[in-house]
Amino acid sequence: MKKLINQPEDVVSESLQGMAAAHEDLIKVNLDPIFVYRSDAPVQGKVAVISGGGSGHEPTHVGYVGRGMLDAACPGDVFVSPTSEQIIEAIRRVHAGAGVLNIVKCYWDDMDVFAEAAEQAHSEGILCANILIDDDVAVSESVYSHGRRGTGATVLAEKICGAAAEEDFDLTRLADLCRRVNLNGRSMGMAFTACTIPIKGTPTFEIEEDQMELGIGIHGEPGRERMKIKSADEITEMLAVEIIEDPFYKRTIQEWDATKAEWVNVELENQPFQRGDQVLAFVNGMGGTPVPELYIAYRKLEQVCTEKGLTIVRRLIGTYITALEMQGVSITLLRMDDELLKLWDAPVNTPRLRWGI
Amino acid sequence: MKKLINQPEDVVSESLQGMAAAHEDLIKVNLDPIFVYRSDAPVQGKVAVISGGGSGHEPTHVGYVGRGMLDAACPGDVFVSPTSEQIIEAIRRVHAGAGVLNIVKCYWDDMDVFAEAAEQAHSEGILCANILIDDDVAVSESVYSHGRRGTGATVLAEKICGAAAEEDFDLTRLADLCRRVNLNGRSMGMAFTACTIPIKGTPTFEIEEDQMELGIGIHGEPGRERMKIKSADEITEMLAVEIIEDPFYKRTIQEWDATKAEWVNVELENQPFQRGDQVLAFVNGMGGTPVPELYIAYRKLEQVCTEKGLTIVRRLIGTYITALEMQGVSITLLRMDDELLKLWDAPVNTPRLRWGI
Repeated sequence: MKKLINQPEDVVSESLQGMAAAHEDLIKVNLDPIFVYRSDAPVQGKVAVISGGGSGHEPTHVGYVGRGMLDAACPGDVFVSPTSEQIIEAIRRVHAGAGVLNIVKCYWDDMDVFAEAAEQAHSEGILCANILIDDDVAVSESVYSHGRRGTGATVLAEKICGAAAEEDFDLTRLADLCRRVNLNGRSMGMAFTACTIPIKGTPTFEIEEDQMELGIGIHGEPGRERMKIKSADEITEMLAVEIIEDPFYKRTIQEWDATKAEWVNVELENQPFQRGDQVLAFVNGMGGTPVPELYIAYRKLEQVCTEKGLTIVRRLIGTYITALEMQGVSITLLRMDDELLKLWDAPVNTPRLRWGI
Repeated sequence: MKKLINQPEDVVSESLQGMAAAHEDLIKVNLDPIFVYRSDAPVQGKVAVISGGGSGHEPTHVGYVGRGMLDAACPGDVFVSPTSEQIIEAIRRVHAGAGVLNIVKCYWDDMDVFAEAAEQAHSEGILCANILIDDDVAVSESVYSHGRRGTGATVLAEKICGAAAEEDFDLTRLADLCRRVNLNGRSMGMAFTACTIPIKGTPTFEIEEDQMELGIGIHGEPGRERMKIKSADEITEMLAVEIIEDPFYKRTIQEWDATKAEWVNVELENQPFQRGDQVLAFVNGMGGTPVPELYIAYRKLEQVCTEKGLTIVRRLIGTYITALEMQGVSITLLRMDDELLKLWDAPVNTPRLRWGI
């Protein structure tokens, strides 16, 4: 196994110790149970924004803790959800009396542990809103999820909601905002190669030298189709068209209602993209894909968006939500409005996303 | 070949077109001859800072064009030097009457083309100072260079000299500063895997599944030793100790003297690191290594530095100077002083390095 690691079981804790040592002005790491939190938490008067999930998707979520983004991130082992104990401890550490927004990617285990933590927090007098991200248009059922999976829009929701929390949005308004990001964002990815979970030591799946997989998940879970490797332009167009032409999408989910302290059914509706929409274009590397290849994809994405009548008004291009060292790319488009633009542009200072500070 | 590209011969131009489209507020690309330049160039009153070299090391150099760093970058084909025509055209585009600092990595071809460009610029009345970066302690002779190769310190020199140029350092002072960064910086790298030049389509070398190479160059050129894969802590310690204990290093090089407009012999001397030194620690991924692995290396690097009496006062951790999708890491330590600290901390806004703006 060709990895720069010590013992496979120490990968998560050692990398977080290194990250905390490198960015001690921004973050601290709690080792037992393990979570990363803002070094100045709790930030008085502010809703705390928390996310979490399996490790192996770095910089998501641990690299986004800091001013203008997350107050805490709870990492599980590689591709394994964190425990509810990690989350409740993180909540206790960073909440400042104004409640907690939990941003949860749509995977069964993540949803379960965040639900347990929200109920426990309520019993301790801390209001939580758990908002789901389910932006991946590739498949409607998957290995670890019912409904669409949560992928690239999570990073955008963390940035935008983190900025809003700094501007003193209250919990209800912040939960609405996070839901709005999810309902206006759509993603799809592909991969050329598998990845290797350190503790397993062998690739998560086999794929031929001349094959790629369209619609793959960020754990390497199956996508839509294996096919012969296509050109960057063809791949980008396939992903972009699926995203842009994704139809009206309606589903009913259970959401933890912070004020009622009970589970409620919520109807979520994604409106299709329309000519004239302004979008943020997020071209994301899966871990092992060099940045120049992402720019080749962006070049084509801009052409496709123009043909479809969408105007790209902001971009995020780089390696932001990954499947370890997998080679591949995902595209996310987020329909923007003036408020989202302002929050996107707001200063942010985290280990892996920084501007304006 | 598992790459997100169209035709292999279009990789450089298409990725730069994508980068320019994504960052049109920062940069422009000139396609024939090809170079990237600040969209607001020439910046009146400022020395222009230029670098260049083969492609395949991105974000170096093209990702560092913008305010507070480079005025222009000249990329060759993958692992091939640019032509002197590219450089002289870039010089003409960005110089603003205050001269040009060319930051040149120590490889024969890079040195030759920048020398030709400097002489040509002189004949057109434009003063150039060409300053060499030769920071790689791994080997003293290599495939493409006489003397030590230029690697990680190049990124640091571009940031620091870019900041100084914004503060209106004149050309002589800026050349001295760049030389000072080089004389206080030392690097060494390693790799687990080879990389594939798009136009070639096969890996640059063969390496067994259980082997790594210590001291490898950023083109995959041979390092010091092949060996069985070691742990992250062992690898980090080997690299760090070679860097920290590298002895007094003296060499004579030819430097283009801008004011005399002739080649002069310059004696360069690197003083060894000493207990009490303050350093910037740069942990760099070779392209295909995920960021958490770099933090595992940083964790150990901090321990080794502490044992050796060095204090890490700044860090840069990420994928900044690469060999395409190669898996591996390099470490650079740069001895800092108050002036270097201030220039390092100054705002920078480029496609791939940004803070304070």
